[in-house]
Amino acid sequence: MRANYVPYPRPSHNSISLTPDAAESKVILAGWLVSRRKGGKGLSFFGLKDARGTIQLVATESEAASILHQINLNSTVLVQGVARMRPEHQRRPHPGGNMEVAVHSVTLLNPADSPLPFDPQDERNLANEHMRLQYRYLDLRRSSLAENIKRRSEVAYTVRTVFHEEGFTEVETPILLRSTPEGAREFLVPTRLSAARVSALKHSEGAESPKKPLFYALTQSPQQPKQLLIASGAVDRYYQLARCFRDEDGRKDRQPEFTQVDLEMAWVSWGEHEESVGASRDATGNTTIATQGTDHWRIGGAEVRDVVERIVQRVWAKMEGIELPEHFRVMTYSEAMARYGSDKPDLRFGLEVQDITPHLPTALREVLERRGEIIEALCVRNSSDTDAPFFNAAAQLSKSETQIVQGFQLSDSTDTSWLCQNRVLSDVSGDIQLEDGAASINRALMLDQGGYIWLSRRRRKPEGGSTDLGRVRLELATLAESLQDFTMPSKPHFLWVTEFPLFTRADADKEFLAHGRWSSSHHPFTAPMWQDVEKMYSGDIEAVRGQHYDLVLNGVEIGGGSVRIHDAVMQDYVFQNILELDKQEKASFNHLLHALRCGAPPHGGFAFGFDRLMAILCKTESIRDVIAFPKTGAGTDLLFRSPAKVRTSIMAEYGIQPL
Amino acid sequence: MRANYVPYPRPSHNSISLTPDAAESKVILAGWLVSRRKGGKGLSFFGLKDARGTIQLVATESEAASILHQINLNSTVLVQGVARMRPEHQRRPHPGGNMEVAVHSVTLLNPADSPLPFDPQDERNLANEHMRLQYRYLDLRRSSLAENIKRRSEVAYTVRTVFHEEGFTEVETPILLRSTPEGAREFLVPTRLSAARVSALKHSEGAESPKKPLFYALTQSPQQPKQLLIASGAVDRYYQLARCFRDEDGRKDRQPEFTQVDLEMAWVSWGEHEESVGASRDATGNTTIATQGTDHWRIGGAEVRDVVERIVQRVWAKMEGIELPEHFRVMTYSEAMARYGSDKPDLRFGLEVQDITPHLPTALREVLERRGEIIEALCVRNSSDTDAPFFNAAAQLSKSETQIVQGFQLSDSTDTSWLCQNRVLSDVSGDIQLEDGAASINRALMLDQGGYIWLSRRRRKPEGGSTDLGRVRLELATLAESLQDFTMPSKPHFLWVTEFPLFTRADADKEFLAHGRWSSSHHPFTAPMWQDVEKMYSGDIEAVRGQHYDLVLNGVEIGGGSVRIHDAVMQDYVFQNILELDKQEKASFNHLLHALRCGAPPHGGFAFGFDRLMAILCKTESIRDVIAFPKTGAGTDLLFRSPAKVRTSIMAEYGIQPL
Repeated sequence: MRANYVPYPRPSHNSISLTPDAAESKVILAGWLVSRRKGGKGLSFFGLKDARGTIQLVATESEAASILHQINLNSTVLVQGVARMRPEHQRRPHPGGNMEVAVHSVTLLNPADSPLPFDPQDERNLANEHMRLQYRYLDLRRSSLAENIKRRSEVAYTVRTVFHEEGFTEVETPILLRSTPEGAREFLVPTRLSAARVSALKHSEGAESPKKPLFYALTQSPQQPKQLLIASGAVDRYYQLARCFRDEDGRKDRQPEFTQVDLEMAWVSWGEHEESVGASRDATGNTTIATQGTDHWRIGGAEVRDVVERIVQRVWAKMEGIELPEHFRVMTYSEAMARYGSDKPDLRFGLEVQDITPHLPTALREVLERRGEIIEALCVRNSSDTDAPFFNAAAQLSKSETQIVQGFQLSDSTDTSWLCQNRVLSDVSGDIQLEDGAASINRALMLDQGGYIWLSRRRRKPEGGSTDLGRVRLELATLAESLQDFTMPSKPHFLWVTEFPLFTRADADKEFLAHGRWSSSHHPFTAPMWQDVEKMYSGDIEAVRGQHYDLVLNGVEIGGGSVRIHDAVMQDYVFQNILELDKQEKASFNHLLHALRCGAPPHGGFAFGFDRLMAILCKTESIRDVIAFPKTGAGTDLLFRSPAKVRTSIMAEYGIQPL
Repeated sequence: MRANYVPYPRPSHNSISLTPDAAESKVILAGWLVSRRKGGKGLSFFGLKDARGTIQLVATESEAASILHQINLNSTVLVQGVARMRPEHQRRPHPGGNMEVAVHSVTLLNPADSPLPFDPQDERNLANEHMRLQYRYLDLRRSSLAENIKRRSEVAYTVRTVFHEEGFTEVETPILLRSTPEGAREFLVPTRLSAARVSALKHSEGAESPKKPLFYALTQSPQQPKQLLIASGAVDRYYQLARCFRDEDGRKDRQPEFTQVDLEMAWVSWGEHEESVGASRDATGNTTIATQGTDHWRIGGAEVRDVVERIVQRVWAKMEGIELPEHFRVMTYSEAMARYGSDKPDLRFGLEVQDITPHLPTALREVLERRGEIIEALCVRNSSDTDAPFFNAAAQLSKSETQIVQGFQLSDSTDTSWLCQNRVLSDVSGDIQLEDGAASINRALMLDQGGYIWLSRRRRKPEGGSTDLGRVRLELATLAESLQDFTMPSKPHFLWVTEFPLFTRADADKEFLAHGRWSSSHHPFTAPMWQDVEKMYSGDIEAVRGQHYDLVLNGVEIGGGSVRIHDAVMQDYVFQNILELDKQEKASFNHLLHALRCGAPPHGGFAFGFDRLMAILCKTESIRDVIAFPKTGAGTDLLFRSPAKVRTSIMAEYGIQPL
């Protein structure tokens, strides 16, 4: 049968808007024919699905019924008939499930092939992902995937609504930006402008080889444009749902293009004293104020974090019906690393790591002190109620070949083999006798018969994103879940992690502009904590904490931000004296430095990874499930068959050719 | 002086929120010091500007005053003091103009250089555009530019709000898409994936030369993704404020990246009968229903145009305080070309074109008939009230060397020299006597002494976007405005233009996929009017009208859309038999054809050019004035100094090298 295109009347309802109000009235609906069966007394029943739900159609022996029986499932039809409520015992909870339509006439709008590559109604037997990506227009018909796409729109609109209530201005920043001297992770866009052509346009690029091709680069984040925007004073609160691009070949579950909820605010302070924060905040009882060495000062950017909290609160209230606390818990990086072995700790369960150095023999303590190291332990106690859900997992993990560090089970509460036979200790203990006082360590750690313990040695000053025991902790939770001993609490656990080291030894992380001994832990625009500014200038770089804050949800970093450097002198010092940028690299920041010298206000901002946030809200593992037309992990688009070859003659227009 | 970063208190107000409610209370404000003067009695007055307005600061001889006198203008400061209402005679209409702050203390947050490259407070003496683009972060501090950026955000949010009220789902479609076989106007993005690598990933690209580089292309519009999305059934109403990219070197006031308000709807009908539209629509008195040959049927997509109208109405109500009619005027392409000589007629003034063929001698009429041509006239009558504002312009234009066609002034009402001495006619009249009956033509056209007339010959079936007389008409209006004889009405004149020819002779427009004799006037997915489907299949291609609709405002096309082909057989016929695509070109649409065969609903959509819309709303000529960080007309970014050269070693990673 052929598709129909003679004008037909507008549908009067869809499966959602067809409510009992419409009962007994004439209605017109359009949708996909998704099921059919014959009942008794010449009746036939059909499922009519639209983008919102599914309505049952009822037809007697008629031309309409005959059309609906003949055409292929998944064809689109327009039906006219009379709406009625379904008998009470037949009502279904799905959208459209309490109404039906007695069909009088049917127009076939567009017939579907039969069979289709796979059945988009079958949520239980999914085709393999390659097929589903290739025929994404069929897979998107699947209700759960369609639901994700709609939730994404709801969340985006909710987020925008809060931004507008808070006086933010949405500003679109360029996607075609300048390539950076490193060029790593960056997509290039060749242009038909050659160096010579641009030079003729009086651009200051210099008059070199006339054919030298010129490139834009796709923005990796709106970081520089948004700082320049705030420096301009055009707006004091900026936001954007910004598309960003990163050429990260081979990282799991990354997309070459992704979306960031991006914000920046002017007049952000470099800190607030705890007292000035007021009693209401402490009254939540949920706020751990980082006091270690900060003299009761919070790091700056509280104005930003307040807005972020209100956004997250609104989203969770609207999408999940959950009321979150007014302020989220705050934890320093040091504390997070010490207690949970992670800079993005999952607080939905306990299993805290302990520093057992103080319980060790003095001689060993002195060795460790000299090495700047500590010994940490993770215990799963047999008699502990809170550890109980992890006991079987501990048993399983301690026998596993692949465990990160060796786990010991105690034969009784005085068993000290875990201490004396542990390579973690023997590597540094030399001929120090560990047995002496070992029993008292057991008591101090409340170790009991049958309990498990894992040990690890690390530098006292934490580095990186996780420790061995942090990974053991997560593995235990995953195992316990799979053994069904443990169910993750459904309540979301939000956490701010603050006071990260501002700089990282370049040998530990070579990612960003690392020529000298130091690289920026996050990016070179992050401000130091004001208490640490003098340390920075005096060369105690390792001790400088940054005004960076990560937002962590259930062990996943969903966003991060910072107070930025607004002082051109300080920014220049960071570029020149700490990061030791070369001339060309520094030149690429000249406009930023100049903007700071034109009276830039103090400012700070934040960015959420929107795809990851949506994956969490849609309770799916892969961000591909929350993107309408995603690419594979390798960056190929199976639907549009991209990337693709290009004719050499077209490349030539851009001044390039194949290698 | 140095920038300050020791924590300071949060500002309590900005220049907008500081209202008389705050009078006599302690306040904290932050902003740019933009002016200062000394008054009598030791008083000093300062202007403190923030992103929302400007507040006057008053200081007595004090440390605060001394700081404010010493620092450079454009520095950022935090001031603490007491708010008060300004004396009645000193209140100013600008935001913040009725309050002042008696300053007690001042913190210099960030000192500005002096002098700056130009003064961003000086709206009257703008620096040249090159300077302003290079230091865009200074130019954006200029109030009128900042205002445009904020208006853009307001409009975007208003548009989104209407979409959400109307049940639309916002969906982000890919920016990294596949390059098309033509590749014209397209930005390419080289990838680190080579053909060999992708082949190894079991992608179907084929195993060719291992080093053959592969490219994404930046999306020119979300046309294909949005059609696939609607075909999927995941959503029935889609929208997106989509960033699009087009490599149109050298076109005036174009940007390589631009924003489109994009929508698409399922279940769009192929037409509505005039009767079914209902009395309320006709009651607006503003709707010209195109009846010529359409048997009182409107073209399809009325559902789409209704939504577009509601969006435009809301935007004009909110931003301009103007209530627009419920439905906009509709005019066919033929009528627009006949009456206004333009497919985007400016209806703010008259000066209609007339077909004078019926008044010509029979012999000449027959010649024209054989040639398929007509003679048109544009008259500016001396005695006509409506023509009066254009009389001086007509006098000037008729003497201009550069006029498109010759204009004649009548020495008296029987002067027929305009007819007899006109090359437009003499080229075709041969030895036909034109004097006979010429006087009666003057009477029929109501030509009077001193009046002006322009003639032009054209094919009866209109082609392209404008006629000679259409251009004369616009030139007359521009001249009349510059002579201050005529003021354009401020009321916006919206118009739908419909019933465009679906196909254009390929020799007239080679832009899109033109191998055969015909190319698509808009794009190859536009549906024919249902009345013309048979003509299409029977080969009367020229006669086929498309279901395309342009939205025109004051002579500017601000958007366009169409009902799409949902029938795979018809789409295939268009590709194969009319456009005569080659195998490779057709293959690039295979996924679309297959999606149509999977039960795609009838659908249609629309897209606004958002930058152009904002330029109109901001009453500026250039879209650069409504984009935060625009590029020059040539595509260079003077702020980020882009495009730029890239190291050969980096190009090599992408399998390319300079030509």
